Amino acid sequence: MSVVVVGTIGYDTVETRFGLVNDVLGGSATFFALAARFFSPVSVVATVGSDFSPDDYKLFADRSIDLRGLERREGKTFRWTARYSDDMNKRETLKLELNVFAEFKPKLLPDQQRSDYLFLANISPELQAYVLDQMVSPKVVGADTMNHWIENERNGLVRLLKRINVLMLNDDEARMLSGEHNLVKAGRAIAKMGPTTVVIKRGEAGVLLVGPEGMFVAPAYPVEEVVDPTGAGDAFAGAFMGYVARVGRLTEEVRRAASVYGCVVASFAIEGFSLGRLATLTWEDIDQRHRAFKQITDSYCSRWTSQ
Amino acid sequence: MSVVVVGTIGYDTVETRFGLVNDVLGGSATFFALAARFFSPVSVVATVGSDFSPDDYKLFADRSIDLRGLERREGKTFRWTARYSDDMNKRETLKLELNVFAEFKPKLLPDQQRSDYLFLANISPELQAYVLDQMVSPKVVGADTMNHWIENERNGLVRLLKRINVLMLNDDEARMLSGEHNLVKAGRAIAKMGPTTVVIKRGEAGVLLVGPEGMFVAPAYPVEEVVDPTGAGDAFAGAFMGYVARVGRLTEEVRRAASVYGCVVASFAIEGFSLGRLATLTWEDIDQRHRAFKQITDSYCSRWTSQ
Repeated sequence: MSVVVVGTIGYDTVETRFGLVNDVLGGSATFFALAARFFSPVSVVATVGSDFSPDDYKLFADRSIDLRGLERREGKTFRWTARYSDDMNKRETLKLELNVFAEFKPKLLPDQQRSDYLFLANISPELQAYVLDQMVSPKVVGADTMNHWIENERNGLVRLLKRINVLMLNDDEARMLSGEHNLVKAGRAIAKMGPTTVVIKRGEAGVLLVGPEGMFVAPAYPVEEVVDPTGAGDAFAGAFMGYVARVGRLTEEVRRAASVYGCVVASFAIEGFSLGRLATLTWEDIDQRHRAFKQITDSYCSRWTSQ
Repeated sequence: MSVVVVGTIGYDTVETRFGLVNDVLGGSATFFALAARFFSPVSVVATVGSDFSPDDYKLFADRSIDLRGLERREGKTFRWTARYSDDMNKRETLKLELNVFAEFKPKLLPDQQRSDYLFLANISPELQAYVLDQMVSPKVVGADTMNHWIENERNGLVRLLKRINVLMLNDDEARMLSGEHNLVKAGRAIAKMGPTTVVIKRGEAGVLLVGPEGMFVAPAYPVEEVVDPTGAGDAFAGAFMGYVARVGRLTEEVRRAASVYGCVVASFAIEGFSLGRLATLTWEDIDQRHRAFKQITDSYCSRWTSQ
């Protein structure tokens, strides 16, 4: 079953201690789609400007990512400029140019409206609700958000939370949304706001999932070179939702397996600038690292009962 | 089989966002012993001053922790004052008074010298080597260290590393010792310096173990209230070494199971100030959280091979 993702496609300028890349393809929908496509067909709803390059279009098309929902407009494509701290744990947005995205009112195609799986990437809660209103009867709706919407569009976000199944957000956002410093408490508080599954993305500390059957913790896969963390969260979301769509249900087992695949695919995303590593990724790479992930997290030990 | 630990017993003054405690029992050997005792007999080699309280002595004795190696001297007991940042991820040492510890030359009793399991807590590499020289033929020697020794006693530390089996250190120390920013590379570089097992303690990101059979990653157990992180690393080390001593060998399976118990016991240590939680801990508490740890880290999923 196919996953519909609504988000940004844009050009990123990113600096990390490994270097600088200028105006390279990025955006939440891009990272999501390039990860999800390994698990399920993906349909992208986004907008780009007249400067969007045919090569970048081809990057999606070559991977059978459905771009019928891509709206081309006169003007410039969304642009984002950021710099990461030396330890990669903090990033500063230096410039954000919405460009054609400022006028974007996503319209889903009839078959997209009937899709069972929808991911609302990090766009305004109002736009997220506008998309959700078009859906006929989705089985699983996932969403991302950010500090900006939590601070400035809280009411809209709170209304949206009642209508979605899975919320993915990072640790600082979880604290801000819930008012709880502790992440276990934050996750539980957010789950009470609506989404049965709350996935807190903790960067190098992995993910904490709070679901209806309890918590799940998955460590980040320890890679040897973190070149650029951009897109890790969207790649996680793509693999997660793609896996859920593939399996066709959201049980505890699926939530956990989807999280592990999310961690695995995200670990590739950060090994290169921009889409560098995701674009060359093969299923064999994913499968191999998935086995490695299981191997390095397997504690074997059965319970040890004698004192 | 019993574990011998050489380290500090002291009085800590600690401030976190949950409050302040004054002159409470602490020290690396204390946290280590209170954790290790659940798995194996523990024998402490340390020094205290004439101000050491009978109640504190009793705290060890009541838990069958062997204090024959405790040296009482005229003067004041080791004291440490520190403050944690609001997110508990950074701490500042405000005052360090070695007091009687400054003159400490640990002498092992004959039965301690013949022990199979030794842990050299965070003391100078010179003192660690002095203790190790007294051992007859230990099977597993573990050690901890800190930034101060890495910077100022590097040669002594490098010599010591060739003589130990397990080095436990935190992420910043691993980076400093290896010169590698990436922790996978740091762990591998340190393993080449001597210890077959390198355990990098990453706070809320859990532990990364680099051993002769590859890596192992264990997440931190997500607790609802981190009150005081003091002693978490020593409690981890105590449970780890205690488990190794109990099982009597250091295979890959044992390394991993020991790490999981380390994470479990450390998660209790941080739930209260000082020894608050460790002092009241029961084997049932540990066993219950160990089951919870397995439950929240179990990803069930078998490999999924179709694309």
